[in-house]
Amino acid sequence: MIVIGELINGTREPVRKAVLARDAAAIAELAVRQAEAGADYLDCNVGTVGAAEAEQMAWLVREVAGAVEVPVCIDTANPEAMRAGLDAYEGEGRPICNSITLERERLATFLPIIAQREVRVVALVMSDAGVPQGVQGRVDAATQLVAELADAGVAAEDVFVDPVVTPLSVDPEGARIAMDAIREITVALPGVHTVCGVSNVSYGLPQRTLLNQVFVCQAIAAGLDSAIVDPLDQRIMSSVYAAEALAGRDEWCAAYLRAFRRGAL
Amino acid sequence: MIVIGELINGTREPVRKAVLARDAAAIAELAVRQAEAGADYLDCNVGTVGAAEAEQMAWLVREVAGAVEVPVCIDTANPEAMRAGLDAYEGEGRPICNSITLERERLATFLPIIAQREVRVVALVMSDAGVPQGVQGRVDAATQLVAELADAGVAAEDVFVDPVVTPLSVDPEGARIAMDAIREITVALPGVHTVCGVSNVSYGLPQRTLLNQVFVCQAIAAGLDSAIVDPLDQRIMSSVYAAEALAGRDEWCAAYLRAFRRGAL
Repeated sequence: MIVIGELINGTREPVRKAVLARDAAAIAELAVRQAEAGADYLDCNVGTVGAAEAEQMAWLVREVAGAVEVPVCIDTANPEAMRAGLDAYEGEGRPICNSITLERERLATFLPIIAQREVRVVALVMSDAGVPQGVQGRVDAATQLVAELADAGVAAEDVFVDPVVTPLSVDPEGARIAMDAIREITVALPGVHTVCGVSNVSYGLPQRTLLNQVFVCQAIAAGLDSAIVDPLDQRIMSSVYAAEALAGRDEWCAAYLRAFRRGAL
Repeated sequence: MIVIGELINGTREPVRKAVLARDAAAIAELAVRQAEAGADYLDCNVGTVGAAEAEQMAWLVREVAGAVEVPVCIDTANPEAMRAGLDAYEGEGRPICNSITLERERLATFLPIIAQREVRVVALVMSDAGVPQGVQGRVDAATQLVAELADAGVAAEDVFVDPVVTPLSVDPEGARIAMDAIREITVALPGVHTVCGVSNVSYGLPQRTLLNQVFVCQAIAAGLDSAIVDPLDQRIMSSVYAAEALAGRDEWCAAYLRAFRRGAL
């Protein structure tokens, strides 16, 4: 499982304050704790929109890359902020651009940025018409996104397709559609990764962690191999280890048993 | 989800003692607590093998049926104990016979007992050659069992196919094979229920409840609609509610929200 740590996100109040105050120590601590908990990438989202975003993103990416060895996942819909974040990044591993979509303007502005660099990319299955309603629409959008990215020099192995899970409170079929899309995308687009912003699924419902935890387990069984989650939440992470073992992706439960021995289950 | 409460099982020491001592109060308490926690059936297994089993089963079934309104699930490989249990049962709902298999002797002795009565049946996908290794062998065995039961007058809707999950500690593919079998059996044999003795999956591994909990969630996403579990374990039951909602089987999360309001999540 490729774990993208979600905590450095300016929509969370302490992070917003740290970004505005340029509190490098607070950001570094969040980065180190997530990396130690097993995150493979660290999402970086400054949480503001507008003129300051590019400069804030550059600062945030520099601080995170200075604090840990895991690469960043630059999370913005603003092409200037994406470019600034990528320019500021000097880490070892390739960063992830989070995210492109089929929206005409987003695609036109992001593809040239991506094409110039060695990056991996989160591709959201949405267009100017919104998120496709069913499974097939998502598979079609994923296919088109992977083709666009291939033209920009991004291999299938570097694409993380996000099938966009609709909150269960909005659509009772939302989670099931996302899971079926994951299953079909995994078959239709060999080599492509699938990723989910897991916590969307529980929006508006009580006991959100329970729903997030169960959803990630079900999605892993459907083929999900990457997720944007809180790596400090032991309920989520222990479920991920168990789910991977049960899905036959952890031979002889080696990772599960290691996690048990270090007290992570 | 059809929940078969697993606690009245003589392989558990307090139950074995209660059966041997004919401690009706202890059995009634276990029955009532499981029924109150949402069990739809109560498994009855005396835990002994041999001459005394039939008489013990008759006593156990009478005590359980006298204590609660949910029907029993008579759990024995001994045809005399099955017959005695069924004869002793005077409850309202139809009982479940747990279980038949394709083993020649078991089939020959159980089918006549089943054919005489209004019962539902757990059908384990195993024969004298053992449990089939892969998915297709399980689907084939399920198909054959459903046909044998149809000849004995048991409708598909009254069959609970158990795909027999091999412990993960024995086969890293065990859980995945069971899940795939559930998915295919659900498609191949319309109307048939699927059931699992969930706790088998975690045999020999640490943090068994975590694995059981994650497995049941993944199996529900694959189509599992019934399980033999501990209904008093809130981790299991809360996961079942979440898993059903996420699988699109709990419209507008009605059951999930009811469970939340009564503190069961």
